[in-house]
Amino acid sequence: MQEKLYAAVDLGGTKIYAVLAENSGRILSSIRYDTLVDEGPEAILGQIAVSVRELLSQAGARTNRLSAVGVCLAGFFDWQRRLLIHSPNIPGLDQIRVEERLSRKLFVPVLAENDANAAAIGEARRGAASGSQDVLYITVSTGIGAGLVLGGQIYRGSRGFAGEVGHMVVKSGGILCGCGRYGCLETVASGTAIARAANEALQNGTATLLRELAREQGGRVNAATVFSAARAGDKLAQEIVSEAVYYLGIALVNLVNMLNPEVVVIGGGVSAAGDELFVPLEKAIRNYAILPAAASVTLKQATLGVEAGVKGMLCLLTEAESIR
Amino acid sequence: MQEKLYAAVDLGGTKIYAVLAENSGRILSSIRYDTLVDEGPEAILGQIAVSVRELLSQAGARTNRLSAVGVCLAGFFDWQRRLLIHSPNIPGLDQIRVEERLSRKLFVPVLAENDANAAAIGEARRGAASGSQDVLYITVSTGIGAGLVLGGQIYRGSRGFAGEVGHMVVKSGGILCGCGRYGCLETVASGTAIARAANEALQNGTATLLRELAREQGGRVNAATVFSAARAGDKLAQEIVSEAVYYLGIALVNLVNMLNPEVVVIGGGVSAAGDELFVPLEKAIRNYAILPAAASVTLKQATLGVEAGVKGMLCLLTEAESIR
Repeated sequence: MQEKLYAAVDLGGTKIYAVLAENSGRILSSIRYDTLVDEGPEAILGQIAVSVRELLSQAGARTNRLSAVGVCLAGFFDWQRRLLIHSPNIPGLDQIRVEERLSRKLFVPVLAENDANAAAIGEARRGAASGSQDVLYITVSTGIGAGLVLGGQIYRGSRGFAGEVGHMVVKSGGILCGCGRYGCLETVASGTAIARAANEALQNGTATLLRELAREQGGRVNAATVFSAARAGDKLAQEIVSEAVYYLGIALVNLVNMLNPEVVVIGGGVSAAGDELFVPLEKAIRNYAILPAAASVTLKQATLGVEAGVKGMLCLLTEAESIR
Repeated sequence: MQEKLYAAVDLGGTKIYAVLAENSGRILSSIRYDTLVDEGPEAILGQIAVSVRELLSQAGARTNRLSAVGVCLAGFFDWQRRLLIHSPNIPGLDQIRVEERLSRKLFVPVLAENDANAAAIGEARRGAASGSQDVLYITVSTGIGAGLVLGGQIYRGSRGFAGEVGHMVVKSGGILCGCGRYGCLETVASGTAIARAANEALQNGTATLLRELAREQGGRVNAATVFSAARAGDKLAQEIVSEAVYYLGIALVNLVNMLNPEVVVIGGGVSAAGDELFVPLEKAIRNYAILPAAASVTLKQATLGVEAGVKGMLCLLTEAESIR
């Protein structure tokens, strides 16, 4: 008999990334589509179903070898009611039972999971925190989110909404966040916040290397450019990075104190900044976390990149299978 | 055969409180001593052993009915190494193996637990959050601590140090905390912080009802007095309370967003303030926590008072027994 296959789909606000894998985790095929974000649930779920069939076809595998499908969702997935409550980047999926509807299209069980949770379990099982039981995964990208692996399992909270670290207030008297509070981590340390701070400074006419880089990029810079300029010695960029990293450090230390994790993994686009980010964060933990908690935690850069979500989903699928 | 008995001991920096109970949780006898805090480990552990024998004698129970003893410790108890790393209020117990040493005195198994964890499981099993699986317990007293019950069990972190919510930074640019950071929750919202703010205001000569109350109390007020004065309409006291509760609300919302608990229980001396505390905290959660998390959480006042720790220990002892 041929080995069972699993498909994992990372459904993002701009891209769908899907892979087909064996039980062992070996990936047989992968595919990337632009998400039909404005075309409603039927179109988006249809896209996923098509992706899965395409993956099987690419791998030359028969449909009946597909054992289950996992989908990571960016949004508030109610784990108890199996209902996607709200998906900020794909509003068409609000109040949709993704598992049930996809399962009817694909004729296999479908398991949904919040994307940060999936990435967290990916990094905890196959990535930067392999072998660790208590892992805090933070993704710093356009937004900031978190996934908790506690005692070896995803911790979702009572309903599935745990991990909203982007809305931890870290700067009293900071700017208004979409959530209604002022000074949330996302408003000072996300890729969006870093880029905004840089673009505001450019408009205020501050002369800097950033201005040259902005010109090359059509007048505006993104977070990656700000980190590059900081590395190249640009003072303004260094100040912006330093502010963002300072507040990220506050949040990290708060969480190390509260949760006493074994490993903290930072992923997401901004984590590619490397030392500019990790050296000061490491220092913040060593200097400011409560001593016994600081002494028992390791800070790591995520290693799975954009594959963290699908790799986590594959772990969850094969683990769910082995329980059945 | 007679029912087995369990003793639970709450070892505090000023008092030792100990109870003897049946498997059912029914308490047969209780005792309170002043802790011999400055006399070293042998004296303190000896006191506990004496307390336990006294409890048995009070209850008219033979020693061989004692099945196990639980001790809640205020400090950093390394759950993996079974070692009390540091106990800020009883420095004589630093680096002591409390379980092993007490067990040798009492000839029964001894189980140690951090006091906030024990209180959290007490409230989650027998108190304000009975029947809930995901409980955040916060104790606001001279300091501020927390215990997490996640998925029905105490979550201790990788080594046993989870729950240090008192050192969450909530006020950027606030005052220096003992932990090395500025603006920690303890520096603005603990009983100590509330009393300090009031006593500073009194020294600055602000005329207020607080001054009269202070005179009655020998020149200084405590947090309870500040809450009473606020209830009686004193403007200064109201401002002090309002500042403390505002920052406690920031911390609560941060944690509701991060952990999506089913119930948040507030205990400790300051929680006796009742509505002055709970009405604004409830409002903070409703208005500022992420919508799905806010909609799925209940805020409750602790119901076990000073018994939370020993009642939690009794639960842990009988549960450990049933596993054996």
